[in-house]
Amino acid sequence: ASTMTLTEKEQEEEKKATSLNGGGKKEEEKGIVSYWGVKTNKITKEDGTDWKWSCFRPWETYAADLSIDLKKHHVPTTFLDKMAFWTVKALRWPTDLFFQRRYGCRAMMLETVAAVPGMVGGMLLHCQSLRRFEHSGGWIKALLEEAENERMHLMTFMEVAKPRWYERALVFAVQGIFFNAYFLGYLISPKFAHRMVGYLEEEAIHSYTEFLKEMDKGNIENVPAPAIAIDYWRLAPNATLRDVVQVVRADEAHHRDVNHFASDIRYQGKELRESPAPLGYH
Amino acid sequence: ASTMTLTEKEQEEEKKATSLNGGGKKEEEKGIVSYWGVKTNKITKEDGTDWKWSCFRPWETYAADLSIDLKKHHVPTTFLDKMAFWTVKALRWPTDLFFQRRYGCRAMMLETVAAVPGMVGGMLLHCQSLRRFEHSGGWIKALLEEAENERMHLMTFMEVAKPRWYERALVFAVQGIFFNAYFLGYLISPKFAHRMVGYLEEEAIHSYTEFLKEMDKGNIENVPAPAIAIDYWRLAPNATLRDVVQVVRADEAHHRDVNHFASDIRYQGKELRESPAPLGYH
Ligand SMILES: [Fe+2]
Ligand SMILES: [Fe+2]
Ligand SMILES: [Fe+2]
Ligand SMILES: [Fe+2]
Repeated sequence: ASTMTLTEKEQEEEKKATSLNGGGKKEEEKGIVSYWGVKTNKITKEDGTDWKWSCFRPWETYAADLSIDLKKHHVPTTFLDKMAFWTVKALRWPTDLFFQRRYGCRAMMLETVAAVPGMVGGMLLHCQSLRRFEHSGGWIKALLEEAENERMHLMTFMEVAKPRWYERALVFAVQGIFFNAYFLGYLISPKFAHRMVGYLEEEAIHSYTEFLKEMDKGNIENVPAPAIAIDYWRLAPNATLRDVVQVVRADEAHHRDVNHFASDIRYQGKELRESPAPLGYH
Repeated sequence: ASTMTLTEKEQEEEKKATSLNGGGKKEEEKGIVSYWGVKTNKITKEDGTDWKWSCFRPWETYAADLSIDLKKHHVPTTFLDKMAFWTVKALRWPTDLFFQRRYGCRAMMLETVAAVPGMVGGMLLHCQSLRRFEHSGGWIKALLEEAENERMHLMTFMEVAKPRWYERALVFAVQGIFFNAYFLGYLISPKFAHRMVGYLEEEAIHSYTEFLKEMDKGNIENVPAPAIAIDYWRLAPNATLRDVVQVVRADEAHHRDVNHFASDIRYQGKELRESPAPLGYH
């Protein structure tokens, strides 16, 4: 029976499912799941209700550390630092022009870009670890965690701002360019790449601060927080968009620290793995 | 003080470190860490001793499920399935020729390749999720977890077989080719890519079974298990290489299930995210 082809087995399962509940989709899927023995465990929240997210689990949620210093800044001294700093400053100008004061939309769009560096860096370190038969010092995971966290930012802002078709097209083009540019940049100079992300995060903190100001002025409505954000950052049930922007901003401050730190390690001529990675640093 | 440049601050910290413990490396690193507020928490094992691995943490360890069916096989029926099956069979031939009965070395070398597909798949799904403003259904994490797990296999076998210079060169070349081939393959046909990995895992199970047989015949010495393996798979302190190969083989069987399952989902014309990913399926 274990060498049965999928098609035969599937038909069997489908028959069963059909006879059980009239071909309900859920039962059918369970049948396929059991074919490979791949079980998707049912997860419940602390209050006993079903966990409704499949893209993150209860043990990945956290309460953001809002006490983090938002003003910390790495003064660029070397040529590379200055290049990273001014590259980011130059990118800010067209971005400001494009979005102006539409901070919700801006946040959503920028998070599609923000989730790229962690994935690229993590992937390159992973491949390097394999090629060199070397441990990673936890940095692969730390960078992938950053990418994961940025994607959660996007999943959150998606709930309050819907992308229009030309915005989708823009994301497509920007991702294509930025992914490759960052990939190359990381290959050539990891210290430059991490420094640049550090500065990007400094700008992100600034944008989210502006976002909060606009909300306080009443120019942006302080709508209730999306359900996904309440579960991910363990917010109060009556949390609002303002709370969400605050925890996201705290996340960016943590990314800033991690990336400037990574750049500093490389500046000392060390590999990242020589200094244990800050895993779970939120 | 927060805008102090690294160089100034660093000198200060270094001075402190030097005066405290004669420039001990550990103290110095702590100084740099505190500059960005990035704390690396001290982790202890259940028995109170220090956790000595920075590439994985206690909560990522698990006891392998040895009861998994090792003989399950997906009979190729479609053209794509057959192509995946015969590609893997064809790759087996030069591999057998190269390694012959050096199973320890073979395991080490093949794990450098095995850790690639999960990373490529996870990365592509991540980028897709960002571009399409869509949830991943947990598949990004599931595939990245697989890559992580395979890298742990490598870190384990590295302890029992040391790569020689020409083997390092071979890994370098093979990774370059395989990474790009799998990347392209996944872009063109995810169902083919996952099916191929499913078959690769079936072969891996076979190789590890041969490894065990050779050990039982006394052709390969059943040395004590490496410390990293004991911690990662929660093995007994007196576990041996034989135990390690068994848990690794169980891991491969789980990867086989997940990848054939992923391929099956795609064969039904669905996206992976439409069926929640088996996270933490070991
Ligand atoms: Fe973000
Ligand atoms: Fe960020
Ligand atoms: Fe493996
Ligand atoms: Fe595997």
